[in-house]
Formats: sequence, structure tokens, C-alpha cells
Amino acid sequence: MKITKDLYQGSLALLTDFYQLTMAYAYWKSGKTEQEAVFNLFFRKNPFQGGFTIAAGLDYVIDYCRNFKYDQNDLDYLRNMKGKSGEPMFEDAFINYLGDMKFSCDIDAVEEGTVVFPNTPLIRVKGPLVQCQLLETPLLNILNFQTLIATKAARITLAAGGEDVLEFGLRRAQGIDGALAASRAAYIGGCSSTSNVMAGKLFGIPVSGTHAHSWIMSFDTELEAFEAYAEAMPDNCVFLVDTYDTYTGLLNAIKVGKKLQERGKQMVGVRIDSGDLAYYSNMAREMLDSAGFHEAKVVASNDLDEYLVFSLKVQEASINVWGIGTKLVTAYDQPALGAVYKLAAIKDQQGNWEPKLKVSQQTIKINIPGFQNVRRYYRKGVASADMIFLEDQQNEEKGPLIIDPIDPTKRKKIDIGLESELLLKPIFRHGEKVYARPEIHEIKNRTKANLERFDKAHKRLVNPHIYPVGLEESLFNLKTNLVLKAKNQ
Amino acid sequence: MKITKDLYQGSLALLTDFYQLTMAYAYWKSGKTEQEAVFNLFFRKNPFQGGFTIAAGLDYVIDYCRNFKYDQNDLDYLRNMKGKSGEPMFEDAFINYLGDMKFSCDIDAVEEGTVVFPNTPLIRVKGPLVQCQLLETPLLNILNFQTLIATKAARITLAAGGEDVLEFGLRRAQGIDGALAASRAAYIGGCSSTSNVMAGKLFGIPVSGTHAHSWIMSFDTELEAFEAYAEAMPDNCVFLVDTYDTYTGLLNAIKVGKKLQERGKQMVGVRIDSGDLAYYSNMAREMLDSAGFHEAKVVASNDLDEYLVFSLKVQEASINVWGIGTKLVTAYDQPALGAVYKLAAIKDQQGNWEPKLKVSQQTIKINIPGFQNVRRYYRKGVASADMIFLEDQQNEEKGPLIIDPIDPTKRKKIDIGLESELLLKPIFRHGEKVYARPEIHEIKNRTKANLERFDKAHKRLVNPHIYPVGLEESLFNLKTNLVLKAKNQ
Repeated sequence: MKITKDLYQGSLALLTDFYQLTMAYAYWKSGKTEQEAVFNLFFRKNPFQGGFTIAAGLDYVIDYCRNFKYDQNDLDYLRNMKGKSGEPMFEDAFINYLGDMKFSCDIDAVEEGTVVFPNTPLIRVKGPLVQCQLLETPLLNILNFQTLIATKAARITLAAGGEDVLEFGLRRAQGIDGALAASRAAYIGGCSSTSNVMAGKLFGIPVSGTHAHSWIMSFDTELEAFEAYAEAMPDNCVFLVDTYDTYTGLLNAIKVGKKLQERGKQMVGVRIDSGDLAYYSNMAREMLDSAGFHEAKVVASNDLDEYLVFSLKVQEASINVWGIGTKLVTAYDQPALGAVYKLAAIKDQQGNWEPKLKVSQQTIKINIPGFQNVRRYYRKGVASADMIFLEDQQNEEKGPLIIDPIDPTKRKKIDIGLESELLLKPIFRHGEKVYARPEIHEIKNRTKANLERFDKAHKRLVNPHIYPVGLEESLFNLKTNLVLKAKNQ
Repeated sequence: MKITKDLYQGSLALLTDFYQLTMAYAYWKSGKTEQEAVFNLFFRKNPFQGGFTIAAGLDYVIDYCRNFKYDQNDLDYLRNMKGKSGEPMFEDAFINYLGDMKFSCDIDAVEEGTVVFPNTPLIRVKGPLVQCQLLETPLLNILNFQTLIATKAARITLAAGGEDVLEFGLRRAQGIDGALAASRAAYIGGCSSTSNVMAGKLFGIPVSGTHAHSWIMSFDTELEAFEAYAEAMPDNCVFLVDTYDTYTGLLNAIKVGKKLQERGKQMVGVRIDSGDLAYYSNMAREMLDSAGFHEAKVVASNDLDEYLVFSLKVQEASINVWGIGTKLVTAYDQPALGAVYKLAAIKDQQGNWEPKLKVSQQTIKINIPGFQNVRRYYRKGVASADMIFLEDQQNEEKGPLIIDPIDPTKRKKIDIGLESELLLKPIFRHGEKVYARPEIHEIKNRTKANLERFDKAHKRLVNPHIYPVGLEESLFNLKTNLVLKAKNQ
């Protein structure tokens, strides 16, 4: 499967901020294009005031990089750009240079479906400065959004406590790929299916759906409408019961459900899309049970999110399946993750990595310098801390102390000998893919398995316990020294 | 230009909710596919607690409809879908029916860049029931999002009071088309340019950008970095001055600005991306003026939205150009418009339109029945009220009373003889396009011209004066009678 290739015709090389191209040109004019650099993509806060984040989007990134190539149309567009003076913005030789450019970076990344935390790299791009720079915007676009939605979906499915969550946000999603990528990420995060048929086709996700209010309204009576639907799709009967009146709708659904039984078929359930879902779901359950439909499910929808799902469960609503749209696919309460992509080091002429730092008056905005990797430690199978360390120092196990990147008085000793794993996995080497892309179902399973390895205190919807992530001591010292040096200049 | 065709390879026919297809199948089994229906797409509340909305997205819709065709790949996907019993979900004859389907609807719509209000149709689709139904989800996806973003952009540009607003949200947008469609809609709403080069190429929008912090960090000193950039792009120098320290950054920008002058070039300006923008922009203005750079612009960015822009102007910040990203392209404070698409009437066997109503316990959720159009009245050139009326009654000028759809005690008399216009324009007839698609620059101009015809009280960012929109009296009576009849059943 080639996601972006299947989705988008031709080149996506221009899906970038214009300043990446003006910088590329200036790098080229300064003879710096091939200088080796390393950039990290990371976020600074878990979304939704939560305690964890689910990485997603890597498969799009892989596709983007593999197809990274300016086509003739792109080059013509750039060639025709004029500066203020009316002169061409870019020299022809630069346009040709772009046309000849071949993706040649090393990329390491956290696999999709992995639980991740603030400040740790989700992806590390090493290669010619100009290529690293040109990839900044598309990588952020892809990973910011899919990671956000996978996290939202994970929160909602955790709230639903193992019950099915159907994603049906296409009509309210932010654009066409805002919907497609959301359906993909929602499935990775834990949803069981999507309403978006194109997402089903492209990504191999199960699709689901039955009928809308308009189906009912196109008949003279609701009963006729249910009967006609049952006649057409006897195996897929979830009757929407609230077009006119939920109680009458339930009576009609039960009537048609009985007729289905006479044909040896089973009504799958009923759906309630408005009104008080706790009240009506319990009414539905009682009426269905009284009529002998113990297996029939009650599907509920209507602007739900993880907080409403949680609240309805506390109220003992009789809901078996949750339909979630707008609040999931737009991540309504926080529609952007805010991940950034920062230069971390540049190779000097002696071939050593020179760590790079962006200073800021806001402490949280100071990046972590150097060529990093992340190690996750487990105690008795439960994740206990993540350590960010300098990979080029080749002493991954140096521990045992990690120090919080914002508050240096928060420190944690790591026991030597704990089970651990490196989170960044090799994806590309010299522009060649070295990673076997997993099926989407495997990714979904990874999310579930990963979440199970974290204490439930980190998974609480509000006020979660903070999972410890820190800098290995020598990295912490490097950063501190660089900040002090920069501030003294 | 074929937007979706250019953007997306192959068919988008499956970009729909699965229930549209199960309903289509059930319509087909019930022999109702060709029954003529009319659906309206409308929203129920202006976004952002504002007083107006800007329609956008129609050009995508036109493209979608013109290319509406199930391809072999789509049909194979549907053919292979299995129901619970393991049997194919759809009969082969239905799949063939879909394969032969040719878009044949009449579509009328509000033109892009038009100021619109709750409850009035943005688009009206008339045609075979099954086609109207299949179009529901993609039309909502496209129009919901672009209308939302055009409105946000209009609010921000109103707050900026005529100063340039640059959109650069690609990295935080919701997916690839979440970015592209947002850039398009933001331009329509009033932005001057985008950072998204692909949007520039596809839609013919101006693009802008200079350099990032990473450019500065890749050099040993900031001064070297500015000099190298000025050497490469002397006509496009907006120096980002806050990588290390804004004051020093400004000093360095001025130094390099002077060198540019010696070469007969002008520094365009400086950009501040962090810290207190009121304080630093005034510092920048003073330092630039003292050095004789009166023409140099101060560009500001950092999580801005219309409220911050407004506040900074009240504080007399010296900002000439506003860079807006995340808050604009995700419509951060309300990331979905919530427009719906409702069956309004079905043609009976005598060829008369039978109005259709969805009842709800929530009054706001009861739709307006019947075959509608909208007329806007102007008094001395200023928009004074919109009237929703039954077009098939052919008495558009029936007035003079309009009645609020929610609160029937809100009524307004329309003077006969006021200047007026119909808002719904013919776009397709029998599946053929009859509308001349305007250039994007024309659409942008329409937004501006349209907004100028509304009193400023409706354009206030908070607590706007409500613009009157009402049902023509006979439509109001029709709706009331239908609701009472439905509730008495």
C-alpha cells in the first residue's frame, strides 16, 4: 500500500512552508546544503491534559519520503516565481539542483501505536541540512495530526472500557484527508470501525453503518421504513429509533425485529442519536429485554467524547456501542498537538556532532541538544521511566540517574539491569527503507499492548500521574552548559 | 483547474459514510432510487459566537460532483464486502447499478465568499433520492470545513483592520487536505498569502516566507546567518530576530539592513515569534525608525488569533503584518461548524413537492421543510434581512413578514420594493454545470465586498448584533402545522 501515492496524484514535494525553500536556496548559495545535520520532532505536552500520547502517522511519513521528488510541474512553478524586483526568485541552477535531489536521509522513529511522552523524539532525521529542512513541514503536518487523533481515540476507548467505539466523523472532519487520516489514526488508537468507506478501502479498516433519519422520512411511516430496510438488509439491522419519538421507535423496532426472527434473522440493535442517552438507553434495554431481544445492542451517539462516555457509564446507561464523530476526528477540545521539529546537532568538519540549542525566555521552549535516542525501562513488566540520552556517546546504559528537562530537582535513579528497550527504530538508511511496515491491525494491537504496560494512574482522563521522562545525566549537563553559555553571550 | 482531480488520484466516490451505501442499497431494493427529493445543507449557529459566516468550498463541491463516478476499484471493494452471514453484502445487480450511475442532480448554492447565516440553505440538492443521499457526506465534509476557516480568516482580518494577515498553519493543520483546503479558505476569508507552497501552486494563492530559527542555529553567529541570507535573497529579507535575544537580534538585523542599503536593496522587515509581542514590537519599531528603516515592517507571530490581534492593536503594538497558524487553520476555539444536510421534500406521484420534517425534542434541531430559496433585502445598500421562502410557490416577493424559525414572536416586516437578491444560484442542471467558476481572487473580493454591505454591529468579535433571518409567513405556517401534526400522531 502506498498511502499518499494512492491518495494524492503526483508530487507532494511542495507540501511545505515556503521558507523551507527560501532557506534551501540560501543554504545552496552558502554552500551548506550537504552539511550533515540532525533534527528531532517532539511535542511539549500531552494533549487533552492527559497522561500519555499514542504515536501515529509514521506510515504516511514513510510514503512521503519514498516519493519525495520534485516533478516538472513543481519545478516550473518555482522557476516562475518572481521576487519584488520582478527578477526570478530562484536561479535556474538551484531549480535543477532541486530536480536532481534524491532523498538520502537516515530516519529513526518511534513505531506507530507506541505510548510516548513530552520531549522525547518521535522521529529523528539525519542527513544533508537542506533535506532535513525541507522535510520539516510535511513531517509535522502528518505526525501532529495522526498522533493527536490516535491519542483521542485511545482515551475514548479507555473510557468505553472495552466496548466497541465506532468512528463516524467524516462529515465534520477538517477536509478530505482530515477525515481519512483521522479514520486511520482513530482505528490505531482503539476504534473498532469507521463509517468512512474510502478509509476502509485505502487502509483496510472495518466499516460500519446502517441508515439515517432521511431513510425514515422518505417513507410515510417509520414502521414501513424499518420493514423496507429489514427486507433489504436483514443481516445489518440497527434501527435508528429517534426520528419522531424514541418510545414509538423502539416499539416499531421490536415489531420488525420479531418479523426478522420469523425469517431466522436477528436484529443487531437500535441506535439513539438524540435526547437523554442515559434515560433512553435504559428504556431501550428494558423494552428489548422484555421482548426477548437480550442480544440486541444499544448504540448511542450525539456529540460524545471521552468525558460523556465516562459519565454515561457512571450513570449506568445501558449502552453497548458508542458512535463518536466530531469530538474525535477534530480532537475538539484541543485540535492541534503542537509538536515541533528542531535542529539538535550539526556535524563539524572533523566529523563530530556539534550540539545545537535554541534559547528562549520560556524554559519549556528550549530544545534538548545533541544526537539523541530514548530508552524505556520496565520494572516487572510495567513501564517505569524513559531516558533521553546522547546516542553518539555510545553509553546507552550509562544511567542510573535521569533528570527532568524542565525541573532539574526532579530526579530518578534507574536500577541497572531493568528490562529496557530503545524507542527509536531504524526506518531509513541513506534514503533506503530498512523497516518492515506493519499491517494496520498490528499497529492497533501494539497500541493496546503498549497501554497495558503502563500503570492505570497514567491513563486517568483527568489529573493523571506524571510518567517520569528525563535526561541522562551527561545530556543534562551538556544542555545546562549550553544554555548558560548562550545566556552569557 | 480541477481541484479534487488535481489533488486526489482516481475516484472519491467512496468518500462517504457507509450508511449512505446501505441506504442506497435499500432504496434500490425498495424501488425508490429514482424518486425525486430535495435536500438542504445548512448550519444552526454562526461559529465562534460570531455574528456572521462566510460560505466557502463550493468549487471543491463542483469538482466532486463532476468527477462523481465509481471506478472498478470501488466496485470491487463493495462487491467483496461480506455480511454477518458471510454472504456478499450487496447483490451484483446493485453494484452494476452503482457502476452505471451518472450524476444527474440539480444543484443550487450560495456563491463562495457570500456572508451567510444560520438556517438558510448553503446548498440545495434536487434529484434522484439515491444520488442526493450519496452526496450528503462529501458535501458536508467539504463545506463544513472551508466555511469554518473562511469565517475564522474573515474575523482575524477584520481584527487586523486592513493589515496583512499571512496564513502559515500547514504544520499544525489536520492532515494534508486539512492544510490545503484551509489555505484556500483562509485566502477567501481575507488572508493575503499562505506559507503552503502546494496550496500556492494548486490554487494560485500568493506564497510567502523567509527563514526559521534553524537557519540562524546552523551558523556560528546570528550576524553571519543574517548576512548569508541577505547575500542569497536580498529582495526577501525579513529577519527573524528572536533566536537568542530579541534586542541583539534587532541590532544584527539593522547592521545587515544597512549593508543591504549599500547594495541598493531594502530590508523588508523583522519577525518576532516569541515573548511579549506588544513590548518587543514597539522596541523593534523604535530601533528601526532610529536607524532610518521607516519602511521596514514588523511581522509578529506566536499562537495568535482574532482576540490577541485585537488586544495587541488596543495596546498600540507596532505590528504591521500578522502571521497566523494553528488557531486559524484548525479553527482552534471551535474546530467544527456542525452543518447538517436534511431531506426537505419528496416529489409525490402527482409531481407535487411533499414537504418533509424531522421532529426533535430540541426545537433547534427541527428542520425547515419544503423546496426553499433565500432572498436578501438591502436598505440603502446595507443588508437588512434574509427571507427563507418556498420557491415552488413562485411568489418570491410575497413578503412582507418574516418570522424567526426558533422564536415565533420575533417578526420583521420587509418593505416592498427594497433592493433584493436571491442567494441560491444555479450550479448544476440535470448533472451539467451551468455555473461559471470564478477565479479565487474574485471570490476573495466578493468576501470583502459582501462584508462591507453589513452593519459593523454584526461583525463585532464578541456579542454581535443578530442579523434577522426568518421564514416567509406561508413557510412558517407550513412548518408549524407539520410540527403540530407530527407531535399529535
